[in-house]
Amino acid sequence: MTISLTPEQLFLEDFHDTYQFGATPANGVDRQAGTREHGEIRDWFTKKAQAAGMEVRVDSVGNVFALYTWNPEADYALLGSHLDSQPLGGRFDGCYGVIAALHAAQQLNEEVLAGKVEPKHNICVVDWFNEEGARFQPSIMGSSVYAGFMDEKKILDTKDAKGIKVRDALEEIGYLGTDKAPIPVAYAEIHIEQGRLLERHEIEIGAVTQSWYTQKLLVTVNGEQSHTGATYMADRHDALTAAAEIVLMTEAVVEGFPGEEIVTSVGQLTVEPNSPIVVPRQVDMVIDLRAHLRSQVEEARATLLSQFKDLEKRRGLTVLAQDFDIRDHQYYPLDGIELTEKAAAEAGRSCMRIETMAGHDSVPLNRIVPTVMVFVPSVDGVSHCEREFSRDEDLVAGLKVLKEIAFQLVGGSLDADEAKVDSALDAMK
Amino acid sequence: MTISLTPEQLFLEDFHDTYQFGATPANGVDRQAGTREHGEIRDWFTKKAQAAGMEVRVDSVGNVFALYTWNPEADYALLGSHLDSQPLGGRFDGCYGVIAALHAAQQLNEEVLAGKVEPKHNICVVDWFNEEGARFQPSIMGSSVYAGFMDEKKILDTKDAKGIKVRDALEEIGYLGTDKAPIPVAYAEIHIEQGRLLERHEIEIGAVTQSWYTQKLLVTVNGEQSHTGATYMADRHDALTAAAEIVLMTEAVVEGFPGEEIVTSVGQLTVEPNSPIVVPRQVDMVIDLRAHLRSQVEEARATLLSQFKDLEKRRGLTVLAQDFDIRDHQYYPLDGIELTEKAAAEAGRSCMRIETMAGHDSVPLNRIVPTVMVFVPSVDGVSHCEREFSRDEDLVAGLKVLKEIAFQLVGGSLDADEAKVDSALDAMK
Repeated sequence: MTISLTPEQLFLEDFHDTYQFGATPANGVDRQAGTREHGEIRDWFTKKAQAAGMEVRVDSVGNVFALYTWNPEADYALLGSHLDSQPLGGRFDGCYGVIAALHAAQQLNEEVLAGKVEPKHNICVVDWFNEEGARFQPSIMGSSVYAGFMDEKKILDTKDAKGIKVRDALEEIGYLGTDKAPIPVAYAEIHIEQGRLLERHEIEIGAVTQSWYTQKLLVTVNGEQSHTGATYMADRHDALTAAAEIVLMTEAVVEGFPGEEIVTSVGQLTVEPNSPIVVPRQVDMVIDLRAHLRSQVEEARATLLSQFKDLEKRRGLTVLAQDFDIRDHQYYPLDGIELTEKAAAEAGRSCMRIETMAGHDSVPLNRIVPTVMVFVPSVDGVSHCEREFSRDEDLVAGLKVLKEIAFQLVGGSLDADEAKVDSALDAMK
Repeated sequence: MTISLTPEQLFLEDFHDTYQFGATPANGVDRQAGTREHGEIRDWFTKKAQAAGMEVRVDSVGNVFALYTWNPEADYALLGSHLDSQPLGGRFDGCYGVIAALHAAQQLNEEVLAGKVEPKHNICVVDWFNEEGARFQPSIMGSSVYAGFMDEKKILDTKDAKGIKVRDALEEIGYLGTDKAPIPVAYAEIHIEQGRLLERHEIEIGAVTQSWYTQKLLVTVNGEQSHTGATYMADRHDALTAAAEIVLMTEAVVEGFPGEEIVTSVGQLTVEPNSPIVVPRQVDMVIDLRAHLRSQVEEARATLLSQFKDLEKRRGLTVLAQDFDIRDHQYYPLDGIELTEKAAAEAGRSCMRIETMAGHDSVPLNRIVPTVMVFVPSVDGVSHCEREFSRDEDLVAGLKVLKEIAFQLVGGSLDADEAKVDSALDAMK
């Protein structure tokens, strides 16, 4: 029956099939890293890849690689993204990039086997472990270890909120591997935009030029626990009212900047002891600062820290703020941006240059090999929620562009930058 | 060795002994209802009572009664409080009242056995189950079921945050009993003030005249989950920034009232999905409103509800507020207040009339039998925290007053109000 389907239909059939894994009532998915649902979609992916004649390897931090090795002497052009999701996340974030990569690689393989293409490099499709960072922090874990920017042992010992280690979660779902990871020569990733610029401009393909400067602040407010009934307002040092001010300061700090050049958030906040009749003694929260320019993040951070000092005095409590997860700008190589523009033109699709506000596995990869990042439109620009949506026609257009990029990568189009490739090989040890 | 100790020393020895149960590093205790630590102090209490010749009964919602039955035909004057605590709570809240009651009852029993006292009623010391309401909500659970104001089956099926039922927690620590609860004729409770009025006025004993009007609001903010990186500020419907406004509105609403006649708090707040890189979709919180007058609580509530409407419009999200746990004023009977004043005078202690802002087991008891509520000073007025403190000399003074009140209660001093006693008997079925 499937013999009569077009390559686009085959791709959509597979992609729609992934909706079942961790399906949530309102058309979303919940496949947090290392959970049963995450294991299930990886098993499905492994079977699909093997059925298409690919060799599947799992490395020691749970990255899954599916390879076509046309030449055992050659290294690999990597295509990929991630199959894990946020809690009550969307069907598209990450998963689209992996399934598109799988089909682009298979289409390319058919052409190689048919003698239509003479590849210089082999190809590999990757499902990076824990891009989302919902269950285990930080995010972009598997690709960062692979690229040499996070310590493998430390990552494997990282615990979730229940005290379960990455190592044990991976073992539980059968993805704590021992295979050697393939050596990369280039990387390409396609992803939904998660913003609304493409939609606003009615453009089908985004050629990503740079990632934003991002950092987090881990903030702890220490007040004094007391009785909600018996303690006069004047005698309180309420950690939660202080934290509420910090949440609103974080939101308001963007006001001094151009509208779409900075975003700030508090996504995580926990209250101690969190009892209805106890004035809270402690609040822990994570502030996320992201902007087009490093100086914008630094200015927002300085404003907040000075406001915290004032808050401490006013409320007679302490506010501790620690910087972490600082990620500098990453500029994607111009050759790769032009490759995307050319591929879009060949596929008859409109294309614009765009920045990514969100982090992606392509960010650490871009530091070790020439990397191409491609966006397709998100409806309403919403992501990390069940309502996240991208149209089939846009997904298919993206697949075409990715396949053309893959063709160029295995052909060696981005190899010119030998120095970068060498440093990549060094990084892999 | 103990033979040479005074009754006051014996009391202090026992009371200080309780510090070990659920001891926390900063001189507090953590004995949440139905936990192992709670079971341990109850076992200790049971042994102490039995060693003093008392019969111990456990009823079907885990209230523990220790009885001296001088006349099997007579009913019981009850003295008590609770042995459970808040998380990282203080050593005094509740526990003082139970241990003082135990010693008052034992002193009285010695006088009865020596023929110095001719009691009309028997005496019973009670440790009510789950006064704090930290692990299982609502608070004041065991005494409210005993007095007929909460449904026993519903309470036994109440779950904690981990889904464990009251029934199973009680069974686990051996306090899901089948004994018949004693029939009450009167109730007296001594407790630390938890505020700073006695300290401010340098008074040793508080005769409690009324409890405050209290209510809670269960508030749910429903926004939209999105990506902290990829979602522009203008496109967000952040449940946490809205919740932060509500926390600060709740704090600010007291400004229109006299300084020490109202307290408002948010003690419990949880964020969904609570991931560092996800704009929160939902926040659940409990607002606690308490005031001298019912009209003050109602006015504060109306102000908040109208501010929530405005917030919904401004932020494009929904705020659902449900009233629960409404507790009307309770006036303690004047006879009992005068009894406390007389007992204090006889013990050579200063005494003032005072209101209770916090709820106590005496509140439901007061609705079925004549009830006396007595306070001793709290240092700095802090409670529900490890720093909670009351001086030994104040605790001993309180014991003397309680013992005198117990003497009056078993003698029938508050029996005049026969109608109230009858309704109590009806309530017990």
